[in-house]
Amino acid sequence: MDNIRKIAGSIKNRDRALMKKAQDRLDNLTKPLGSLGRLEEIAKDIVGMTGNENPVLKNKVIFTFAADHGVTEEGVSAFPKEVTAQMVYNFLRGGAGINVLARHSGARVVVVDIGVAEDLKPASGLAIRKIGRGTKNMAKGPAMTKDEAIKAIEAGVEIFEEELRKGIDIAGTGDMGIGNTTPSSAIAAVFTGRPVEEITGRGTGIDDKGLQNKIKVIKKAIEINRPDRNDAIDILSKVGGFEIAGLAGIILAAASKRVPVVIDGFISGAAALVAYKIEPKTKEYMIASHCSVEKGHGIILEHLGLKPILDLNLRLGEGTGAALAINIVEAAVKILTEMATFESAKVSTKSA
Amino acid sequence: MDNIRKIAGSIKNRDRALMKKAQDRLDNLTKPLGSLGRLEEIAKDIVGMTGNENPVLKNKVIFTFAADHGVTEEGVSAFPKEVTAQMVYNFLRGGAGINVLARHSGARVVVVDIGVAEDLKPASGLAIRKIGRGTKNMAKGPAMTKDEAIKAIEAGVEIFEEELRKGIDIAGTGDMGIGNTTPSSAIAAVFTGRPVEEITGRGTGIDDKGLQNKIKVIKKAIEINRPDRNDAIDILSKVGGFEIAGLAGIILAAASKRVPVVIDGFISGAAALVAYKIEPKTKEYMIASHCSVEKGHGIILEHLGLKPILDLNLRLGEGTGAALAINIVEAAVKILTEMATFESAKVSTKSA
Repeated sequence: MDNIRKIAGSIKNRDRALMKKAQDRLDNLTKPLGSLGRLEEIAKDIVGMTGNENPVLKNKVIFTFAADHGVTEEGVSAFPKEVTAQMVYNFLRGGAGINVLARHSGARVVVVDIGVAEDLKPASGLAIRKIGRGTKNMAKGPAMTKDEAIKAIEAGVEIFEEELRKGIDIAGTGDMGIGNTTPSSAIAAVFTGRPVEEITGRGTGIDDKGLQNKIKVIKKAIEINRPDRNDAIDILSKVGGFEIAGLAGIILAAASKRVPVVIDGFISGAAALVAYKIEPKTKEYMIASHCSVEKGHGIILEHLGLKPILDLNLRLGEGTGAALAINIVEAAVKILTEMATFESAKVSTKSA
Repeated sequence: MDNIRKIAGSIKNRDRALMKKAQDRLDNLTKPLGSLGRLEEIAKDIVGMTGNENPVLKNKVIFTFAADHGVTEEGVSAFPKEVTAQMVYNFLRGGAGINVLARHSGARVVVVDIGVAEDLKPASGLAIRKIGRGTKNMAKGPAMTKDEAIKAIEAGVEIFEEELRKGIDIAGTGDMGIGNTTPSSAIAAVFTGRPVEEITGRGTGIDDKGLQNKIKVIKKAIEINRPDRNDAIDILSKVGGFEIAGLAGIILAAASKRVPVVIDGFISGAAALVAYKIEPKTKEYMIASHCSVEKGHGIILEHLGLKPILDLNLRLGEGTGAALAINIVEAAVKILTEMATFESAKVSTKSA
């Protein structure tokens, strides 16, 4: 925990003076004032995060953390548990949604086994950092120990720092874990104080009966474990997941290194809540990629005060929304760094 | 007009049988059913438009049509009229918003002078097809003759067909013309039957007084000219603009060649209304890029029944929204053509 505290303590606010400079430059580009809307805001945010007036988003990395969940034995998911490992192999072969969208955005995907139940074969592009072989069933007791929660966050931090040596200008979060909307819903309910019913959605596609069961399981997990909403590690260990903890580590590490981090969907949103509770300044480095179909996601974004870039009815996870949004973020930055000014282009300014 | 009628008559519906096949394939990709939301719908639409099961969006072209507007003498714009020509030169030097975003999406920009008041120097990347040196002041009489309106549409068709020889897999529309939200508002008001006040916005940034004047001018133009809402050429000639007519030609030509056409913002939306009135089947080939800040744009999209991909508070025009959205459309197509199926990836399907 000392390491996590140290990293959290090192996170700085965005550079507001540089953001002001970026705004002045945006206002002098050959376009009506503010006419590129969110793109201008995003470009300014990236300047503030990176502390660089001329940011270049060359090295883009999506971190996709995979883990299993003991709570699947309660029948909370539409897919069987073995799909977690099968999808990891799909990631490594380049055939999954995240691979396609990351290639499209020019991002590399770092796949991390932080707690898949099955033993995975070592492969290039796969980091094996198992904290456990899946969590325990949170409907019967804590999902993991506090020590495991801390270790999983630290694993995220370490993986980020390892990849940083190869270069990261912008990071994205992603997840794979059959059953993981269940702990994410529990985490969101505890942090936001909103009823479980309001937050819980259909995940990969359960029916009405399945949804009622899922809500019951989540309520039971919260009741049995009594997580302390003021203690991120307590919540994470009792009703969390290894990939959620690992992604919280990615967010903390990115913020400490002034690297913008694009938050994917609902599971990444739960990780963002954890990181935000550990250190609210992490929010200064978060960019919300999209608003998921998964019901609770909007509630998480509202709680964090983040405005999503895209709204395309996505609910896949893996980092797909982040990969897509990184494309828009890069476009935004290019507006700032590549457009001509009124003066340089000899264009007359507003007459008024 | 015969040529326009011939092209309109050649437009076919999307290939529904192929769209059904695309849907089957989407449903077998390694992801929960429908979990890539709009991306899946877009991919399917592109299959139906192109009649190609495995579409590849390699050649992307943004058509940016520039023209001047006589109605600027009524003080309807925040920028002086000479900015139209100055911005064309900015496009040709690559310093404008559209250049940056088109480069980002790998699209080439075709700039067309279809009615700029000033004589522009010939340059590579610029097609000079002047129908006139700006329109006449529509607050005093028709903006152009019917013959000019037809010629401007035909110019759009011809330019599309010329560029098609170099290859176009997807097209985008764009505009430049100081004052052009004024005719676009008039066109939108006439076609949709909605009050001018509801449709008219601030364009490049006029103040409250300017907005009141703009509304008055638009109302006067409609009153004086009495455009027939059932006759696209009548509306276009009386309260339109050369770039709006040219873009309607682009949309008609794209639809006739089964090329998807991404509609930019408000001005392009007015062109889409014209194309739709000439031949409703053009809608089968339209993709709405974004929802503009310009008030009337949402009303146009609603009238056409188009759902925008992005909502980023843009209001620049030039084709910037189209360029950005083409990126997302390309990502959508890659989902269809590059993702693994459950079978090929040996991933278990839903247990239910």
